[in-house]
Amino acid sequence: MPFTYNRTVHFQDTDAAGVVYFANLLSICHEAYEESLGTSGINLKDFFTNQSVAYPIVHANVDFLRPLFCGDKLLISLIPQKLGVDKFEIAYEITVDDVVVAKAITRHVCIDASSRSKQELPDEIIQWLETNRRDAEGAERRKSREIM
Amino acid sequence: MPFTYNRTVHFQDTDAAGVVYFANLLSICHEAYEESLGTSGINLKDFFTNQSVAYPIVHANVDFLRPLFCGDKLLISLIPQKLGVDKFEIAYEITVDDVVVAKAITRHVCIDASSRSKQELPDEIIQWLETNRRDAEGAERRKSREIM
Amino acid sequence: MPFTYNRTVHFQDTDAAGVVYFANLLSICHEAYEESLGTSGINLKDFFTNQSVAYPIVHANVDFLRPLFCGDKLLISLIPQKLGVDKFEIAYEITVDDVVVAKAITRHVCIDASSRSKQELPDEIIQWLETNRRDAEGAERRKSREIM
Amino acid sequence: MPFTYNRTVHFQDTDAAGVVYFANLLSICHEAYEESLGTSGINLKDFFTNQSVAYPIVHANVDFLRPLFCGDKLLISLIPQKLGVDKFEIAYEITVDDVVVAKAITRHVCIDASSRSKQELPDEIIQWLETNRRDAEGAERRKSREIM
Repeated sequence: MPFTYNRTVHFQDTDAAGVVYFANLLSICHEAYEESLGTSGINLKDFFTNQSVAYPIVHANVDFLRPLFCGDKLLISLIPQKLGVDKFEIAYEITVDDVVVAKAITRHVCIDASSRSKQELPDEIIQWLETNRRDAEGAERRKSREIM
Repeated sequence: MPFTYNRTVHFQDTDAAGVVYFANLLSICHEAYEESLGTSGINLKDFFTNQSVAYPIVHANVDFLRPLFCGDKLLISLIPQKLGVDKFEIAYEITVDDVVVAKAITRHVCIDASSRSKQELPDEIIQWLETNRRDAEGAERRKSREIM
Repeated sequence: MPFTYNRTVHFQDTDAAGVVYFANLLSICHEAYEESLGTSGINLKDFFTNQSVAYPIVHANVDFLRPLFCGDKLLISLIPQKLGVDKFEIAYEITVDDVVVAKAITRHVCIDASSRSKQELPDEIIQWLETNRRDAEGAERRKSREIM
Repeated sequence: MPFTYNRTVHFQDTDAAGVVYFANLLSICHEAYEESLGTSGINLKDFFTNQSVAYPIVHANVDFLRPLFCGDKLLISLIPQKLGVDKFEIAYEITVDDVVVAKAITRHVCIDASSRSKQELPDEIIQWLETNRRDAEGAERRKSREIM
């Protein structure tokens, strides 16, 4: 099964149109990424703050299928994929009551935090990528079998 | 026991000084308030969006005792208090590993959402105030007995 | 010339990695859109709050070419384009000292705010689209002539 | 005259109640502080990011007198005051069309960024405090004379 993150829409996520402000949904996806890293044993403070290596986002996109309201119970599922020796991307699917309401992608490169030059993904993140990829593929295979 | 809310510090809560950006802690306290309302059976979408009555914050303050870092596991406890027929305030205590790291207060008035004139607190919120106040007082009494 | 918006990177825009948090750049682009609407005489409060018609974002994407730091002076240029009777998109180019540091797109549909069904773009926004498109095309033509 | 900062309320500043989300007004005040530092010649990137000395906020409070809407043109005036060898506070007054709509305070301590122990305010910030204090006092004196 892919990693999933439960998140209630907060009042602060909304705007004067009464729904979630578009850019905030990407932040909610990033929370799912952080939760997934933490669950796999990565220290979030070290990973995001005291790091010699960083994983800045070089691309992000998001599609909204339905409006999201304060109090909505979101389920965010997350599937990461290695794209090369120094980059990966994460696909997010956001559902409410089993209905897909939005989809998003973030693409990350691995850099040396001081020189900001690209570098190979360290073991810690490769292991996270493999675990979450394998989990997601298992879910895909099970889903295929159920269809057949 | 007072209502408590668990919240991990997200990357987005932090700033370039490496710690939680000050105003974001007030938003985290507001999340605790929302969670407490939801737990008591109040529909958050109706309460915050489709409402004829609103509870705008007229005062807020926050004291920081320690810096907060990405990944820190916050526990926010919340004690509301009725201040009159048309207002209430909420005291928040934020702890990490049983150490108080910050305290905050939000003061709310009850208004008619279209005319924006003050009005008496409706039953729904009075019940929420009484339940959470009683819960908190129970905890205070138990704490006093333990000390004696 | 396309519409441009000047914006200094605020401390709040940054995260513990010391640079602008990715989703915040989309919010900064949205500010440029708001400023452009206001400059063309549209009342922002009515447009975003009291509206019978709304323009929710159904897609957004952003590419980051360089990190952005607190205090950086951004120049955001904005080129909108009508995509049909009920939708438009806006392309943003973000530069610092004449160097492109990021690009983004937001795609908007026009809906009836209460029924949330699609409706034709009203005159107000068509005029904004035409003015800003013409301005941008003028700049393109001048740039072509300079090259020739 | 005290330092003033002009700021239009953005869509992102608002929430589903249609007005500025309370904590966002403190962020807007912090923008005024940043703008004031920048105007006095302080490099914001160094000040907030690469610093050996930091000025974390230990207390903040805000009072709301009127609701603020998307598109409102805010004028934030800022008066800092030295509170000791290692701390200062800033008083903010937010007006719309010459009407005071909110007031806020932030209190800052000066620390060594790595050890996080208190240290004396460096010359750079003392000069900023004195300049902005003197400017503000000049305005107060002129106002008193006008009254007499």
